[in-house]
Amino acid sequence: MRVYLDNSATTKPSKEVVDTMVEALNEYYGNPSSLHHMGVEVEKLMKNARRQVSKGLGVHEQEITFTSGGTEANNMAILGSIEANRRKGNTIITTKIEHPSVMNIYKHLETRGLNVVYLDVDNNGRLNMDELRSSLSKDTILISIMHVNNEIGTIQPIKEIGTLLKKKQSEATFHMDAVQSFGKVAFNPSSLGVDLVSISGHKIHGPKGVGVLFTRKGLRLQPIIFGGNQESGIRSGTENIPGILGMGVASENIYNNLNENIIKMANIKTKFIEIMKTEINDIKINGPEKEDGAPHISNISFLGTRGEVLLHLLEQDNIYVSTGSACSSKKDSKSHVLKAIGLKDNEIEGAIRFSFSYYNTIEEIYYVVDRLKKHVADLRKIIKR
Amino acid sequence: MRVYLDNSATTKPSKEVVDTMVEALNEYYGNPSSLHHMGVEVEKLMKNARRQVSKGLGVHEQEITFTSGGTEANNMAILGSIEANRRKGNTIITTKIEHPSVMNIYKHLETRGLNVVYLDVDNNGRLNMDELRSSLSKDTILISIMHVNNEIGTIQPIKEIGTLLKKKQSEATFHMDAVQSFGKVAFNPSSLGVDLVSISGHKIHGPKGVGVLFTRKGLRLQPIIFGGNQESGIRSGTENIPGILGMGVASENIYNNLNENIIKMANIKTKFIEIMKTEINDIKINGPEKEDGAPHISNISFLGTRGEVLLHLLEQDNIYVSTGSACSSKKDSKSHVLKAIGLKDNEIEGAIRFSFSYYNTIEEIYYVVDRLKKHVADLRKIIKR
Repeated sequence: MRVYLDNSATTKPSKEVVDTMVEALNEYYGNPSSLHHMGVEVEKLMKNARRQVSKGLGVHEQEITFTSGGTEANNMAILGSIEANRRKGNTIITTKIEHPSVMNIYKHLETRGLNVVYLDVDNNGRLNMDELRSSLSKDTILISIMHVNNEIGTIQPIKEIGTLLKKKQSEATFHMDAVQSFGKVAFNPSSLGVDLVSISGHKIHGPKGVGVLFTRKGLRLQPIIFGGNQESGIRSGTENIPGILGMGVASENIYNNLNENIIKMANIKTKFIEIMKTEINDIKINGPEKEDGAPHISNISFLGTRGEVLLHLLEQDNIYVSTGSACSSKKDSKSHVLKAIGLKDNEIEGAIRFSFSYYNTIEEIYYVVDRLKKHVADLRKIIKR
Repeated sequence: MRVYLDNSATTKPSKEVVDTMVEALNEYYGNPSSLHHMGVEVEKLMKNARRQVSKGLGVHEQEITFTSGGTEANNMAILGSIEANRRKGNTIITTKIEHPSVMNIYKHLETRGLNVVYLDVDNNGRLNMDELRSSLSKDTILISIMHVNNEIGTIQPIKEIGTLLKKKQSEATFHMDAVQSFGKVAFNPSSLGVDLVSISGHKIHGPKGVGVLFTRKGLRLQPIIFGGNQESGIRSGTENIPGILGMGVASENIYNNLNENIIKMANIKTKFIEIMKTEINDIKINGPEKEDGAPHISNISFLGTRGEVLLHLLEQDNIYVSTGSACSSKKDSKSHVLKAIGLKDNEIEGAIRFSFSYYNTIEEIYYVVDRLKKHVADLRKIIKR
């Protein structure tokens, strides 16, 4: 039995997604820009995929741009809106617990003279609305906040921020990184009041190499990739048709059963934490435990152990987890997220992220806790000696 | 029988490529950045794909960066080297017949104050070395020239340029857009003297959504996409594993039989032009006919007809061609390439691009000429009336 609890790093593409991609590779290989019907046919299929994604998000088809992934979507949103609004101001507001793909854009922008305000978060990872309110000024051109944190599952108060911006008549663009929330938390960009939303295919049992940027109609962005003016000129390059069609199917599948999927994941998470607390002592649940948190992420510190060692012991049982974000897992540095929520060094060292999918089962959870219990006990003995 | 002669727009992924991608989608779905062996396993496969591509190009593995396609590779090369060398100078040298994905980068850079020199070409599309020599100055930071023209198959004198740059001890970076030459013309970046080479997967029976940028060891580029520092930091974003593995297989396949493939395509092209000349009168062969041209592209004007109408008549016979670059086919404007080589309006109007693959056969060519002969005659009658 393989138990894959690393669904926030990436997911297994569903059968429907793979079937759709194979069909596209074998049958619909035309270039959508071609004038003949092999091109026209592919363009229609792409239009359908755009409709599928837009339906999931509850937005217009014209507001959907396909990208090469969540990282590119984040770059387009942040760099593209900064370029388009550079004359209006010089300040960006974000938090201390964003994803590396976003953090590294800021580091780059800081070298270009932009002022980036990193909001603190509380011990559940939540930003402080008062701090945001007092940071906001005429100079703010972009507010970029992740919806669900990828390491601890915190859900940020996006709607409150949207309301605040409206109330203050702020001209700042509001970007939400929804890579960890699309298909896991019900949301609608217009009711949240966001202008830009980034999404990734491979986090929702769709393909790697494809993502989406929602851009509110009327919002101006400067492209970051220039060329044949595909995607209404905002993202050039021959379209990744198999990836795009796979993304369409993945979005439709996840949104057709959204509530059911959320309940399933939430039940798994609740059960997991519950039996973990009963079975293993000296653990610390990091981030929000209940309804405030995303249903699919559980971060736990096993005190007196090392997360990386536990990870490798678990993989011998065919159980796959991670110590934090995959994107920073190979660097030596300690998680900036766990630091920001105030964890001590030993708590960070013993932390494991478990991330669920609706494909996981309660049986798997029992198996994982059983193995963990053994490994944690063994490890604590060794470390004590 | 479907006869696909639009292989410069895009190609059908080969069976080996599709099989490799399906295996990756179903089995190797781990995130290469993950610490557990599902990640390690995928990282190994990616390393193998990198080796396959580097072998085809005759370069080091570390010089290969996977991108989301040829357009992104061109953007990384051009924008990335401009950003890295902005202090050294302000001038870019290119030609008047580059691909739209490159032309539109220049248009953008011109709005940022860069000076772009567009070299003229002769009636075969070849740039003039004297003009290049006299344009070159201390202010030149980039020379970007496409290897094979996508509309008429001209092969530019890249090696001569490389030699000139060395002789002049130019500090300019030399970029070659090899999207239409990789797998169609034998070349080696170091013997050509180029620093950067862009390649696309879907032009060589590989997948859409993946490309490669060769970057000569030691060359500094500024990234255009920031994030998790994948691809040695130069191209962030979770890697498109199925696409990358497909690209590896496509490169290996095309390079294992390169000479054979080239001879096959050249024979088809020669035969095609030969019977075309015998069977249809009042035609004009655009671009180089023989060894000076790429083996897979033939551009022909059928005087007294309209290319777009011919294209639609041919597709009724299940024959697929194009009127020019797919990336600009939907715009009203006339081909900038055919204009630059001095074609008259009526010659541009009647032009069709036929682009071959080694999967095409001589039988197909006979069928195409037969159908063309009929359609051209019919069309000429109608237009005369």
